[in-house]
Amino acid sequence: MKKFMNTAATMVAESLEGFVRAHGEIVVFGAGRKCVRRRHFTPGKVALISGGGAGHEPMHIGFVGKGMLDAACVGHIFTSPTPDQIVSAIEEADTGAGCLLIIKNYDGDIMNFEMAIEMAAHRHRIETVIVSDDIETGRTGEGRGRRAVAGTLVVEKIIGAAAERGLPLEELKRIGDRLNGRIRTMGVALSGVTIPQIQRTTFSLNTDEMEMGVGIHGEPGHSRQRLLAADAIIRHLCETISADISIQPDTKALLFVNGLGGTPPAELYLAYNAAHRFMEERLIHIERALVGTYVTSLDMQGLSVTLALLTDDEIALWDSPVATAALHLSP
Amino acid sequence: MKKFMNTAATMVAESLEGFVRAHGEIVVFGAGRKCVRRRHFTPGKVALISGGGAGHEPMHIGFVGKGMLDAACVGHIFTSPTPDQIVSAIEEADTGAGCLLIIKNYDGDIMNFEMAIEMAAHRHRIETVIVSDDIETGRTGEGRGRRAVAGTLVVEKIIGAAAERGLPLEELKRIGDRLNGRIRTMGVALSGVTIPQIQRTTFSLNTDEMEMGVGIHGEPGHSRQRLLAADAIIRHLCETISADISIQPDTKALLFVNGLGGTPPAELYLAYNAAHRFMEERLIHIERALVGTYVTSLDMQGLSVTLALLTDDEIALWDSPVATAALHLSP
Repeated sequence: MKKFMNTAATMVAESLEGFVRAHGEIVVFGAGRKCVRRRHFTPGKVALISGGGAGHEPMHIGFVGKGMLDAACVGHIFTSPTPDQIVSAIEEADTGAGCLLIIKNYDGDIMNFEMAIEMAAHRHRIETVIVSDDIETGRTGEGRGRRAVAGTLVVEKIIGAAAERGLPLEELKRIGDRLNGRIRTMGVALSGVTIPQIQRTTFSLNTDEMEMGVGIHGEPGHSRQRLLAADAIIRHLCETISADISIQPDTKALLFVNGLGGTPPAELYLAYNAAHRFMEERLIHIERALVGTYVTSLDMQGLSVTLALLTDDEIALWDSPVATAALHLSP
Repeated sequence: MKKFMNTAATMVAESLEGFVRAHGEIVVFGAGRKCVRRRHFTPGKVALISGGGAGHEPMHIGFVGKGMLDAACVGHIFTSPTPDQIVSAIEEADTGAGCLLIIKNYDGDIMNFEMAIEMAAHRHRIETVIVSDDIETGRTGEGRGRRAVAGTLVVEKIIGAAAERGLPLEELKRIGDRLNGRIRTMGVALSGVTIPQIQRTTFSLNTDEMEMGVGIHGEPGHSRQRLLAADAIIRHLCETISADISIQPDTKALLFVNGLGGTPPAELYLAYNAAHRFMEERLIHIERALVGTYVTSLDMQGLSVTLALLTDDEIALWDSPVATAALHLSP
């Protein structure tokens, strides 16, 4: 696939610069451009910091702003930010109430965030929440288990609202850890992704094939299958994620259909329709919905379905105002 | 390109149903599903109604809500809604202060909206604003001149804010007509679009080609060119749109980079960065920015750049609160 780009070496920096120019009322670059941070911090509030490789935009930079993150660090494409970047974000964002780092469960991210904590812990109170919502990758038994994908948005939104209410660091960690256990995501791809440096797709599919169980780094999923009608695809995703999680009668949930970069809104809404029907038939009450392109894998054609079981308190936190570049809810 | 769909015949209806399910706090279907309308109308406010073919989502349904449209009618893919649909929307949305129809300048749309006006004019006060911001299609000299593309969003947002303030019908028409004269858009495509009914792309490009001057209906643009670096592409778009419009010193503007369906956010921000730099070098003050996938051409990989010269009053209207599925600004 072709891209709007100049050089692979400058692509991330130019895109970030465009983001900050477009949303200057919400965000600014941190010192040395090591992070993107809120234009105005709230003294006394716990600082929420996340980060990860580039290529997943608008996550996380699009979630920086009132009601969600205080700062986000961006690495190279599909590459963790450096410990130095993360320390810099901690230094800027911590106004005295400590920092909560929201980390996606990838070896590289865990390692660099842990190094940053070691470097900063003597001057800052720091806790972490590790997100691990990707159902498929947990099954391989490799590495640290489930990785984090689109469910990360849900964790960042709900902890963000709780932080805005002034809750202390330890309580925010507790909310995040509990919530993470009730979020499941599974993805499907109709194409691989084009890595700018090599100008090649990570895998190719025939016109009648799809890849089930993909993550957000362009890797193949757990099985290549014949392309099915949308209803059958969505049914499989929904069956897998809902079977993996303990669902009580009258469970309330958020249902989130996320575009992986190259899938247009009309197809996401069609997929949402099928997912919503599936869940309601299973007596899972879909109390809140989110449909859009929030957590991407460069230009991948594909989508993921996320089911997050929420308590009434968590629904209230989801509904709290948020004013970021990518997610916006009024009071 | 592959799509998430069941059948071509049901695609639009399923996608619309998913949209209404996902955004039920903002919109409901009108009677007989002939339109998508606000859940709550404001009595005494002029009703704003738009519509057009499907395939451009989130436009216009994503712009229904407080601060923008009251109702939107959706036709088949790239096909005008019927006069019957438009009359139905007028009947529902007019609470006594009249209706303003915002129409994109295509022969089919103009014809069907005019027929609807004839059918409804004996019971309703109706005015129209015709949007025609697409620079390239005006040049061919064919048909009714310039067509409407992404600039339609700007017209709907600003008239929408003015309507919310209680301005009368004639004044809203005047605001819309004046504004339309100061908006220019030009698009570029890296791929054709896949029409679901025929499962074929409207045109194919080699891996080193792009199509300059495309609209939003999958038609080829005015010239096929060798794919260039993003900076060169954006410079050409910006030169063309800014040369076509009378720019005074210290002109204030909104700059809008719109994705056509298959282009990920990171590339849109990179393009925005180049466009912003171009405009600022020309001493056009970019006071407001919008970057995202708002006016699509099914799954086309591509983008458009819109320049809208705005008065201070129009900037204030742009900044007014809006709460729709696709566009959201807090007070």
